Amino acid sequence: MSHQTGASTNMSILVVGSVAFDSVSTPFGKADEALGGSATYFSTSASFFTEVRLVAVVGSDFPDEHIKKLSGRGIDVAGLKKVPGKTFRWKGRYDYDLNCAHTLETHLNFFSSFDPVLPEAYKETPFVFLANIDPELQISVLDQVKKPRFVACDTMNFWIEGKPDALKRLLQRVDLVVINEAEAREFAGASSLVKAARIIQGYGPKTLIIKRGEYGAMMFHEGEVFHAPAYPLEEIFDPTGAGDTFAGGLMGHLAATQDLSGHNLRRAIVFGSVMASFNVEAFSLERLDTLTKKEIRLRFSEFKRLTHFEEM
Amino acid sequence: MSHQTGASTNMSILVVGSVAFDSVSTPFGKADEALGGSATYFSTSASFFTEVRLVAVVGSDFPDEHIKKLSGRGIDVAGLKKVPGKTFRWKGRYDYDLNCAHTLETHLNFFSSFDPVLPEAYKETPFVFLANIDPELQISVLDQVKKPRFVACDTMNFWIEGKPDALKRLLQRVDLVVINEAEAREFAGASSLVKAARIIQGYGPKTLIIKRGEYGAMMFHEGEVFHAPAYPLEEIFDPTGAGDTFAGGLMGHLAATQDLSGHNLRRAIVFGSVMASFNVEAFSLERLDTLTKKEIRLRFSEFKRLTHFEEM
Repeated sequence: MSHQTGASTNMSILVVGSVAFDSVSTPFGKADEALGGSATYFSTSASFFTEVRLVAVVGSDFPDEHIKKLSGRGIDVAGLKKVPGKTFRWKGRYDYDLNCAHTLETHLNFFSSFDPVLPEAYKETPFVFLANIDPELQISVLDQVKKPRFVACDTMNFWIEGKPDALKRLLQRVDLVVINEAEAREFAGASSLVKAARIIQGYGPKTLIIKRGEYGAMMFHEGEVFHAPAYPLEEIFDPTGAGDTFAGGLMGHLAATQDLSGHNLRRAIVFGSVMASFNVEAFSLERLDTLTKKEIRLRFSEFKRLTHFEEM
Repeated sequence: MSHQTGASTNMSILVVGSVAFDSVSTPFGKADEALGGSATYFSTSASFFTEVRLVAVVGSDFPDEHIKKLSGRGIDVAGLKKVPGKTFRWKGRYDYDLNCAHTLETHLNFFSSFDPVLPEAYKETPFVFLANIDPELQISVLDQVKKPRFVACDTMNFWIEGKPDALKRLLQRVDLVVINEAEAREFAGASSLVKAARIIQGYGPKTLIIKRGEYGAMMFHEGEVFHAPAYPLEEIFDPTGAGDTFAGGLMGHLAATQDLSGHNLRRAIVFGSVMASFNVEAFSLERLDTLTKKEIRLRFSEFKRLTHFEEM
């Protein structure tokens, strides 16, 4: 695992996504208007590995202390635009099946008219993560990056159903797609994940990672399948942000090591799973706030023991 | 992997369970009155590894060719009792969610009054598998075995709800429980699998294996957790018997190697997963009928590649 300090610009990651307020209730408690959003989880997670450049928009109600917290982690917030109006808000509930979020309210506010313009210094970022936003916005950000080395994106059923053509145009320009199991099936129109993976890879991306919540993650890459389990936690307090925290650890490790081989992609998925396993131990970003690199290394080794067996 | 030929009696496995006719429909086709039953799947699967002794009951309508088929695999059928009446029948349907069987009809027939008496030669069998039948029958079989070395059992929601006390009495005498994920949660009254495992282990068994269908299997053993994925198949034609085929490969490997260490339990789970992955490729026992030891070894290696990653 590399260290953020001294990360060179060819290890940088650009992320575009949401910075938001989340109100979440789970069987274990609740959080009101806590810091959340895909870009927040992603950049916090990736900041343990390398330098991150954030592109997002917030309203005038967004407190400076949150921005200071992000920049305090070494996250470049030059691309975080503050505009008049209210910050994006999401309100959700999880029941005992923590794999399934029930959205109670979504206030997109001005987020729908978000037209991201990259700061000049961001335009040569080698690693790009397009979090789950309108695929047309994802394309517009990608258009502004000069020759990115590795581009990954997330998406969701809302865009699969609403903007399938834009999504397919995006996928032609993406190296890696990270997507939920149910969404992979829906997007491909196939119940078999092996078939679904082949169909989605046919749209362009060389690598597909399917997130399966408490069942872990699967990667399809160059004819190989890799399976990483989820960490067996006693309790999952709040699954909000797990997918973006996973992607942050994954991209963070890839950027920090500059190694895009299949072997290193496997390790990157395990680092992603490690980061997600910590994130769900508490509400909002509470657990990542206190996390140390030593804890990350230890849990990585525990993941090794979790799946290791010797051949005869 | 050891070979069945020349297996000594201290490598033998006794299995008690059902030998039945299954009528199954899935999105891929259907089978009518095909050979099935937990003891059939288990013993066929285990017969690739070691000697198996079968305890079950069938009706006078049960064709001799089925019995010849089992004994042709080296399975000892001295404990397969034929009585007047009709053989146990199960009729089920799987929709696209192949993790969930919909039972359409169950004809227990005389199976409910089954009172197994072990042939004398069976009473010193070192490995015992009590497939999913009435826990009182499981206890009655176990009572007849002298000092078994390793005892494993399966069970289901029907007995968890109907005979919890008998089940708990059984568990005090069992080394390993193999149980479905939903049933583990129901039995323990806990949604967290880590908690559920601790509660069930508290009833007696040192080792617990939780079957998660297409998500693989988890083992809880001496404070460690091991996770084995399912094999990523293009299509699952018929999941009937997957759990018993899994248990057959698992117990077969343990008995053949005579090694009950945690390391070997991990390998045994992978052999179980290998056997189950073949079984679901076709209806009834069709795939196991043509399976070779070479195919088993090859898929075992594929499972290794499926989860392998190198530490930094």
